Amino acid sequence: MTKDILGIAASSGIAIAKAFRLENSELTVEKTAVTNIDQEVARFNQALETSKSELEEIKEHAHKELGEDKAAIFAAHLLVLSDPELINPIKGKIQNEQVNAEFALNEVAAMFIDMFETMKNEYMKERAADIRDVTKRVIAHLLGVQIPNPSMISEEVIIIAEDLTPSDTAQLNRQYVKGFITDIGGRTSHSAIMARSMEIPAVVGTKTVTEQVTHGTLLILDGLDGKIIVDPSAETISDYERKKAAYEAQKAEYAKLVNEPTFSQDGHHVELAANIGTPADVKSVIENGAEGIGLYRTEFLYMGRDKLPTEEEQFEAYKAVLEGMNGKPVVVRTLDIGGDKELPYLNLPKEMNPFLGHRAIRLCLDVQHLFRTQLRALLRASVYGNLKVMFPMIATLEEFRGAKAILLEEKQNLEAEGIEVSDSIEVGMMVEIPSSAIMADLFAKEVDFFSIGTNDLIQYTLAADRMNERVSYLYQPYHPAILRLVQMVIKAAHKEGKWVGMCGEMAGDEVAIPLLLGLGLDEFSMSATSVLAARSQISTLSKADIEAVIDTVLTMTTAEEVETFIRNTLIKSQSLTMMK
Amino acid sequence: MTKDILGIAASSGIAIAKAFRLENSELTVEKTAVTNIDQEVARFNQALETSKSELEEIKEHAHKELGEDKAAIFAAHLLVLSDPELINPIKGKIQNEQVNAEFALNEVAAMFIDMFETMKNEYMKERAADIRDVTKRVIAHLLGVQIPNPSMISEEVIIIAEDLTPSDTAQLNRQYVKGFITDIGGRTSHSAIMARSMEIPAVVGTKTVTEQVTHGTLLILDGLDGKIIVDPSAETISDYERKKAAYEAQKAEYAKLVNEPTFSQDGHHVELAANIGTPADVKSVIENGAEGIGLYRTEFLYMGRDKLPTEEEQFEAYKAVLEGMNGKPVVVRTLDIGGDKELPYLNLPKEMNPFLGHRAIRLCLDVQHLFRTQLRALLRASVYGNLKVMFPMIATLEEFRGAKAILLEEKQNLEAEGIEVSDSIEVGMMVEIPSSAIMADLFAKEVDFFSIGTNDLIQYTLAADRMNERVSYLYQPYHPAILRLVQMVIKAAHKEGKWVGMCGEMAGDEVAIPLLLGLGLDEFSMSATSVLAARSQISTLSKADIEAVIDTVLTMTTAEEVETFIRNTLIKSQSLTMMK
Repeated sequence: MTKDILGIAASSGIAIAKAFRLENSELTVEKTAVTNIDQEVARFNQALETSKSELEEIKEHAHKELGEDKAAIFAAHLLVLSDPELINPIKGKIQNEQVNAEFALNEVAAMFIDMFETMKNEYMKERAADIRDVTKRVIAHLLGVQIPNPSMISEEVIIIAEDLTPSDTAQLNRQYVKGFITDIGGRTSHSAIMARSMEIPAVVGTKTVTEQVTHGTLLILDGLDGKIIVDPSAETISDYERKKAAYEAQKAEYAKLVNEPTFSQDGHHVELAANIGTPADVKSVIENGAEGIGLYRTEFLYMGRDKLPTEEEQFEAYKAVLEGMNGKPVVVRTLDIGGDKELPYLNLPKEMNPFLGHRAIRLCLDVQHLFRTQLRALLRASVYGNLKVMFPMIATLEEFRGAKAILLEEKQNLEAEGIEVSDSIEVGMMVEIPSSAIMADLFAKEVDFFSIGTNDLIQYTLAADRMNERVSYLYQPYHPAILRLVQMVIKAAHKEGKWVGMCGEMAGDEVAIPLLLGLGLDEFSMSATSVLAARSQISTLSKADIEAVIDTVLTMTTAEEVETFIRNTLIKSQSLTMMK
Repeated sequence: MTKDILGIAASSGIAIAKAFRLENSELTVEKTAVTNIDQEVARFNQALETSKSELEEIKEHAHKELGEDKAAIFAAHLLVLSDPELINPIKGKIQNEQVNAEFALNEVAAMFIDMFETMKNEYMKERAADIRDVTKRVIAHLLGVQIPNPSMISEEVIIIAEDLTPSDTAQLNRQYVKGFITDIGGRTSHSAIMARSMEIPAVVGTKTVTEQVTHGTLLILDGLDGKIIVDPSAETISDYERKKAAYEAQKAEYAKLVNEPTFSQDGHHVELAANIGTPADVKSVIENGAEGIGLYRTEFLYMGRDKLPTEEEQFEAYKAVLEGMNGKPVVVRTLDIGGDKELPYLNLPKEMNPFLGHRAIRLCLDVQHLFRTQLRALLRASVYGNLKVMFPMIATLEEFRGAKAILLEEKQNLEAEGIEVSDSIEVGMMVEIPSSAIMADLFAKEVDFFSIGTNDLIQYTLAADRMNERVSYLYQPYHPAILRLVQMVIKAAHKEGKWVGMCGEMAGDEVAIPLLLGLGLDEFSMSATSVLAARSQISTLSKADIEAVIDTVLTMTTAEEVETFIRNTLIKSQSLTMMK
């Protein structure tokens, strides 16, 4: 019997379907002599047209399901296939050298790829990747080989892959892709976050799924427990069908809480908000009953394209989100690029430790045109809803002051141009660097609000890269040092009458929620899909009871002690873990 | 007139000498036909012998000046030149193909280099570098080209280079090398630390010195102000000769404090200790009147060699340091490898953010044989002096407990083997990760002492890689968040009756010293060469006066405010900055 494969539960739910192995197949092109030149050119044209219509379809799909920014990737690919500078030399080669189309294509493409790859400019290097992608599609058609394409999947499957890039994930069709499993990645890797926002179950970091599972094998993906059952027995399948039904029943139960506010058992109100990446996510925010958006990650606007988004493009996105939320608060984080999130067209130098590098507000205060364009777009959009702006990676008061001064300058500029800007925009900051938590008392006098970004805060406080599997055991959200910093921030903010949110993964975690409630957190921002479970959990918790034990928790020596204590005393046994 | 070149003052003092450009010159080898084969082989043998005797000389020099570990690099190089597997094919090629010696050597060497370089093993890859180095020396002799060799310099010069590796620095001859200037690096880069321990002035991070200065140009290197004057006028030279004399006079004045204890003006005693890297450094520790060793970095024992040091080798080194210090305290830090310090023969995987990676105690708790060997060597040496052991990079209590348990286990093992071990070894930890500062109250119950490692603590607390020039402005020792963490640690330790040292760069900094004295730091560990200046400065400071203002300092909002305040109120104007 095959052993179960264990991994990290990255997105909840259960899927039962056949494995679909997504891999980059290598295509072998051989040179052959061709006698009927016209026929060969026609064969080439045919492959070109098939590829184009496929790409059109993928583009349409991406546009509908995932928004314009994702679709732009494929629009760029289509342009490549219509470029006479690429196409004419290929046809010329077929005609003059009397060779087969795939060989001619491969040779000409290789020349362009080489040329672009040797350029210093990162943007040009990316063009090499585009050409490689699209020409591969055409070659596959010429060879009669099918390349796996996640957006073209049309039966129910569970994807297995070494890893999924954001653009792979962007192509997944929710109708057919019932889940995915990867070798690498963690709960906070982009593909995991994407899975939660798409509400498809996922298990990541299995290390070996692609080795252990072959395409077509029946799988059960348990995104609740982070387990994969390979080739299950009929009995196991029916067990999991029951578990799936129970999970869906609980989900239905939670659905009743959609339009309810969030109160603890003893009547303390908190706000449950959602994290989003694109305007398209607003739908799920509303459906899951979030009371606002606690984190709008604006990086997606800048990604998967070949130049900076214009002020107008950004304005439209921000406006769409603000209008979509219909007056509910929307906290927008200004550009947090750098670290593990790169923009090729910005040509940022490689850094030895990108997580400790020139990223986010550091970059924005340095490359100000980038920052000012975003701020202008935000300010213009502010009249369409309840906008709050926050700056990421603030380490010093100088940075917050600098960023806020630029915001005010752009507000004055817009007003001087006669453009209306809301007067009630709150300006806050992420607390994700230890120094700003430690200095929260002084920051609190100058900000309108804090949002604690636990993903980074934990990583810096424990000096452990959360993406590095060898030290991921040190990524401990329940570490008393983290809880103490959270307490420090909340106390400092409340003393100055300011509110504190949290937009890291921790805000939606069932062990953390009681602690955060007890510490006085005002706003919890999480994956939209976690909101209802959190609302349900909070309704069972007494804030006063937790406050009575919080000092004891803060003098526990290890994260393990904290977790055991919370699980034993504060978590009602639930039939299913919903907090994934 | 040439403009002055500015850089980072990395090691104090003033040097006036000609520039010596240290670079890797490219040697061009051409193939020529040879008729007198015997003569060509003789020419090859001659070049081989000259190279060997040069290497012997370099090895001797390294051994005498820098210790056995540095000398081992050159012993390995000598072995290469005696290896028949390399030498015989070269002679064969000269004879059979009737080609010139440099061509034959180059061809054979290239084959070996290729072979080793394609091996997956990092150790083997390093062998390729060895072969490249030594064969280059022989080729240079054959071509009659002189390769710059820092250890062979025999006139007074100031070295200019892009960067100096630890092994470059190891070859510098203090008698002739009056200083060095590099394009890259910062105050805490290894070459800067090495310069201070060798007591030669250095300016690093000039970005362009190698472009702006040509070999042979007269320079003034001002290691006090981080300035280089190119081709100075006679007047400037005499100004700097005066400054140099004044600096040396002050140094002589400080020398009177060598055998004095360290007291503040109001009679508070603190301990001034030194940081060392090898047993050879003990000499300077004693000469500079340090009251102990606050940080013995044991990494040097593991570096510049091709396998782990044995228990015996380590024992000898530790014993030498303990005996050399004659009963004064010696705090030994267990292996802190990883991050920017790699050991090729350990074959550690590359990490995306090595500073947040699997380093120091994380590695030692994982690869326990490494750790146990070091601990056994330390325990055996403990009877020769006053040993204190500390663990680096402790982030959680589990880690400290785990490391201490292994130490106790090895102590019991040794005792069971009948080997004597001191019963009064203190066991402490570095506080260099924010979590351990925040949890200091709980750690204080379990440790014997803390040593605050500010280099890392600052970098994690402000999330800024101190080696990354683009964010080095965030490496702020006077940031109130850092001072608050230091206060937190000292208060927590004193409450439990434990002592606190500091072994980061900050402990020897003239602005930080008053603050640290006021915060109650018990032990200041710094470059040996800073000890006397620090002792002199502390004798002018009143601890009580500083305590009266410390709360004000801790509520300042920026590092700049703190520095300005300290400079204006607590630093007596000094004719020269000695705290480099």
